[in-house]
Amino acid sequence: MSILVVGSAALDTIKTPYGEVHDTLGGSAIFFSAAASFFTPVKIVAVVGDDFPLTQLDFLKKRGVDTDGLEIAKGKTFRWSGVYHVDMNQRDTLSTDLNVFETFSPKLPANYRDTPYLFLANIHPALQLEVLSQMTKPRLVMLDTMNLWISTALPDLKKVMAKVDAIILNDQEARQITGETNLIKAAKGVSQLGPKIVIVKKGEHGAFMVSGDSFFAVPAYPLESLYDPTGAGDSFAGGLFGYLTSCKDHSLGTMRKAMVYGSVVASYAVEQFSVERLRSLTMNDVETRYGSFKDITGF
Amino acid sequence: MSILVVGSAALDTIKTPYGEVHDTLGGSAIFFSAAASFFTPVKIVAVVGDDFPLTQLDFLKKRGVDTDGLEIAKGKTFRWSGVYHVDMNQRDTLSTDLNVFETFSPKLPANYRDTPYLFLANIHPALQLEVLSQMTKPRLVMLDTMNLWISTALPDLKKVMAKVDAIILNDQEARQITGETNLIKAAKGVSQLGPKIVIVKKGEHGAFMVSGDSFFAVPAYPLESLYDPTGAGDSFAGGLFGYLTSCKDHSLGTMRKAMVYGSVVASYAVEQFSVERLRSLTMNDVETRYGSFKDITGF
Repeated sequence: MSILVVGSAALDTIKTPYGEVHDTLGGSAIFFSAAASFFTPVKIVAVVGDDFPLTQLDFLKKRGVDTDGLEIAKGKTFRWSGVYHVDMNQRDTLSTDLNVFETFSPKLPANYRDTPYLFLANIHPALQLEVLSQMTKPRLVMLDTMNLWISTALPDLKKVMAKVDAIILNDQEARQITGETNLIKAAKGVSQLGPKIVIVKKGEHGAFMVSGDSFFAVPAYPLESLYDPTGAGDSFAGGLFGYLTSCKDHSLGTMRKAMVYGSVVASYAVEQFSVERLRSLTMNDVETRYGSFKDITGF
Repeated sequence: MSILVVGSAALDTIKTPYGEVHDTLGGSAIFFSAAASFFTPVKIVAVVGDDFPLTQLDFLKKRGVDTDGLEIAKGKTFRWSGVYHVDMNQRDTLSTDLNVFETFSPKLPANYRDTPYLFLANIHPALQLEVLSQMTKPRLVMLDTMNLWISTALPDLKKVMAKVDAIILNDQEARQITGETNLIKAAKGVSQLGPKIVIVKKGEHGAFMVSGDSFFAVPAYPLESLYDPTGAGDSFAGGLFGYLTSCKDHSLGTMRKAMVYGSVVASYAVEQFSVERLRSLTMNDVETRYGSFKDITGF
């Protein structure tokens, strides 16, 4: 089974207390693919400019990522620049240059439309709706979004939410959508807008899933040093959805394991800048840390 | 085996979005005893004024709490008043009247001094040191503290920390003591000051334990309504230390189970005002929710 991701591809310039990098691989679709490709074949739909260093995606192709849906447009690639402070939970965006991403209108290649699993990474909800309308009949659709769309495009976002099976969002976003401060109530409120499965990311505090009366919580892996938190959320989603797809089953039991695999991959992703750690990571590393999660949560 | 707690007894006036109560039972030693008494006999050392409604402690006596060490001083009982807002993670103290608690100097009855387990609830660290000096040879000493003593009495606090086996503190306190923003580093830094076992409480995000290279995390029980968070931390400590004492063993495996029992009791405590829920709680309720913790963390 394979998975289709539609999202952003970017060149990031990032400064953290551990160093800085310029025009390094970034974007939700890139991080998601790098993470999901450990588990399952991935098809990627995104746009880059003609300045994009395509050879840097070779490691993804080797891992079974199909980049035929990567549109190369005339102009510059989407660029994001930000700085993380000593408290890695806070970051400041220095600049966002949408460039070719500004007019991105995702067109799915014909052979992509019947992909059984679809991840709508964080792009404008109107575009997410366009993607959905091009799909034949996906078995499971998972959605990501951000505070910007909750503030500026809530009606469109609600339309997408009504059509998806699952949503991944962070604690602030869950509170923002519902106006509920209690996170459990907020997650249930999100579910009432459509997605049967709601996964809430809480950074250093881990993540939890609500589905009907079922609840599952997983802590974050206890890291003493985060080199670069960029892409942690997309790596989490990629590990999670990649594992799920490989199981061809989305029972709540499988979802729980998937959340742990997502946490594993995200915990590795932040150990180096950009996708560097996901480049060198092996399935053996993944399984070792999955075992650690068993250990740190067992009683 | 029995456990000795030295801390505060208070009359609380509390307002939350769910209602308000006046001069209701409160204080760290009271909440701790109410929680620990589900598991093991408890001896309590604290001070109240001659206005204290002693009959309200009858439910504790029935559960095996020895109140012979409760000093009744001439004057008024320690009173605290506070208000919780819609976001229950934030509270404002309206008034703190120390009254007889201001000159509290804990004297342990002779038959208390060889109690094997000691919980030093949140009082001035100089008093905690006095208590320690009166003990014969406790098997395990656990410490609680607060931001006020970290700011105003750090040298004394460090002296106590060097003498105890375990400490329970919240995330802000761990960061404040060590100056570390990364919580894992902060917990390890706290451990370097003495306590082999460091337990960090994170409210709605649960708690974790660090001991040497061992790490354990437990989520908070997913509550949609918290009626009154007052005493949650002391109830957590009471459930935890009570269970530990009943096991006569403080291996890390038992500590993990103890943290879950602490989380169970704390999750019940906040369901009603003051100690009301702990009054009506049964061991059957406790075991049922312990089972729920297995369920919400298992994968």
